Amino acid sequence: MKALLILSDGIADVPCPQLGGRTPLEAGTNPHLDRLAAEGITGLMDPLKPGIPAGSDTAHIAIFGENPFSVYRGRGYLEALGVGLSPGADDIGFRVNFGTVTDGVITDRRAGRDPTGLSELVRDITREVSLSVPFSLKEATGTRAALVLKGSGLSYHLTDGDPHREGLAPLSVCPSDGSDDASRTAEIVNDFVAQAAEVLRGHPVNDLREARGLLPANYMLVRGAGIRPVVTPLPERYGISACCIAATALIRGVATCFGLDLIDVPGLTGEYNTVLEDRAGYVLEALDAYDFVFVHFKATDTASHDGNPRRKVEMIEKLDTFVGRLLAGIDPQKVVVALTGDHTTPCMLGDHSGEPVPLVLWGGRVRTDDVLSYGERSCAKGGIGRLTAQDLMPVLMNQAGRVHKFGE
Amino acid sequence: MKALLILSDGIADVPCPQLGGRTPLEAGTNPHLDRLAAEGITGLMDPLKPGIPAGSDTAHIAIFGENPFSVYRGRGYLEALGVGLSPGADDIGFRVNFGTVTDGVITDRRAGRDPTGLSELVRDITREVSLSVPFSLKEATGTRAALVLKGSGLSYHLTDGDPHREGLAPLSVCPSDGSDDASRTAEIVNDFVAQAAEVLRGHPVNDLREARGLLPANYMLVRGAGIRPVVTPLPERYGISACCIAATALIRGVATCFGLDLIDVPGLTGEYNTVLEDRAGYVLEALDAYDFVFVHFKATDTASHDGNPRRKVEMIEKLDTFVGRLLAGIDPQKVVVALTGDHTTPCMLGDHSGEPVPLVLWGGRVRTDDVLSYGERSCAKGGIGRLTAQDLMPVLMNQAGRVHKFGE
Repeated sequence: MKALLILSDGIADVPCPQLGGRTPLEAGTNPHLDRLAAEGITGLMDPLKPGIPAGSDTAHIAIFGENPFSVYRGRGYLEALGVGLSPGADDIGFRVNFGTVTDGVITDRRAGRDPTGLSELVRDITREVSLSVPFSLKEATGTRAALVLKGSGLSYHLTDGDPHREGLAPLSVCPSDGSDDASRTAEIVNDFVAQAAEVLRGHPVNDLREARGLLPANYMLVRGAGIRPVVTPLPERYGISACCIAATALIRGVATCFGLDLIDVPGLTGEYNTVLEDRAGYVLEALDAYDFVFVHFKATDTASHDGNPRRKVEMIEKLDTFVGRLLAGIDPQKVVVALTGDHTTPCMLGDHSGEPVPLVLWGGRVRTDDVLSYGERSCAKGGIGRLTAQDLMPVLMNQAGRVHKFGE
Repeated sequence: MKALLILSDGIADVPCPQLGGRTPLEAGTNPHLDRLAAEGITGLMDPLKPGIPAGSDTAHIAIFGENPFSVYRGRGYLEALGVGLSPGADDIGFRVNFGTVTDGVITDRRAGRDPTGLSELVRDITREVSLSVPFSLKEATGTRAALVLKGSGLSYHLTDGDPHREGLAPLSVCPSDGSDDASRTAEIVNDFVAQAAEVLRGHPVNDLREARGLLPANYMLVRGAGIRPVVTPLPERYGISACCIAATALIRGVATCFGLDLIDVPGLTGEYNTVLEDRAGYVLEALDAYDFVFVHFKATDTASHDGNPRRKVEMIEKLDTFVGRLLAGIDPQKVVVALTGDHTTPCMLGDHSGEPVPLVLWGGRVRTDDVLSYGERSCAKGGIGRLTAQDLMPVLMNQAGRVHKFGE
């Protein structure tokens, strides 16, 4: 049997006053998600441990079967992999924002979120900055970018240059563990930021931006230093072929670490305008070619971070439409389907929290339960009980007949 | 209070098409199992971890309270203990089948499953084979035997001589970890197999077998090398007397490692013809003499491996009859009863799988729940929730008042 894992980022929520005390999952009309629950087996899943809010990075590491408390080594490397850089095993990755600094103070951490001219800026920084180690810089979505420093003897134990708040001065990157390697790496990063600021100051692109009424992209805010987590790729662990359909760089990076092939599907974004619901055919094609297909849907988390429960209901209904079109093409005797989230993101917080997420398994030989709808409170009564995310791949691969007995 | 643990091997299953989508537990009429559920507390138990299929050996190690991922050292030693050999702490045990080899190819891995004359063959091999270390060989059920190599500096990191398929040549035993000890042990085992084949070739017993139309038992297929797992015996851990009633050699071996006395009960087998339902009196006597009694019922697993759900329903009904006769003689104020399985064995797979098993506790002060029947899906709603097997002994001993407070 084959296996399909659909992950809706931040889909889980808590009762919302704007929705009459229902969660976005409970408030919407989701006949296909409910069909999965009614015909399948449900439960709750803790992304990390009960009460501990997960990042999308650590949650996905757990979902792909490794212990993030042991293997996680920061986000930057994953992000760099995800935007298409190819960092080596010893390299360090960083997340970067183009920001606007006025009189030494950050006035906009994302330069107005407008990417006009950024590819030219990336090109010129890459040309003109000269460091004591090689580096790569690549644009990502919006005004984001990823930076890789190459070489040995570098350390990711570094503080962020981004103070994560406007109205403050950018910070110097500092070693966070007092090691010589971290001190040396911090110097290199600070050198990069200073040289890049020189390139950006008075760059024609920024003249153009200002002439158009846009904020200048005149400073690079670095954060999230990270190295490659040591994990066992899924093809090696389970003897399967595996692929990932995701728009979000971070998720693409984690999937790459776990040996999943990336399949590009046109029109997928991490934003509200994504067209996943029109792309079920791509997923069905992937299921023909691969043993395990992972599909990531970001828009539910976007609505949560925007604090917009009604928008989140809409995005869940978009997911539901996608699932309906998908199920029309899936034989449950040949494919086992799992659908879950990577963490709870309550709209009322606009950030991740530590509650478990609902999980459903559908197809194959699953032992069904009495749960009729897919939601945080309905799945709490399900036949799976409560798992941790690290159990998900074994549970799914067991249903697909891909696990080995321990003992005789 | 005393405690009785009834374990039905491979009792758990998944919805079976032949049973109208019910599991064998759900399809049968089991008033006494259901009484345990209705009057007790139920839940699910993962033998190892969610999704990981357990062997009977690793599952029983967990059920008796140790972590099999840490202590398991192969099956052969346990099997050798179970057939009544007394391997020392440094010795290595192997499972052996008498097989039939024709022109260098295995034509029957079990010599037609007929044990005629095997005791004489075991005697003559023991007499005539001479190795660089002492050894013991003993018949087991059917055409099985157990082999023990004695001495220090031996290693159990060995591949099997049994290719586990007919139509192939027997394999040389090889070291699986590249160590000198394993290389030396492999040589000794291969020497044993070669000398044993010489003894078997043209042995009068095989002439007799062939004259009777039976397959010759002319080759010894060795597998499952193992050493003693280091575990804490239950009498030591809980200050209790403990005994085991089981027909299966492996289970008797695991129980012996955990310090349980073996009680022989006539008529018990691992097959469909076992008469456990007529032996409740022996179990009640054991409960008079011991604080903890473990009863193992194999026939449910046998039916599962045979892929026969209707036969499994019958075997579960046999177990139910046994439980009914037992309950008639048990005072729930004096004995707490647990009933569970060691793993799921779906009839549709004919092998172990990674789903959890249903668990019920009955008697004493247990907090009851609303569950009225003993089954995979009903117990998923029970008051115990979902445990792992390593929790079972503490939970049971807590009910029996045999655990100690940690802290003050």
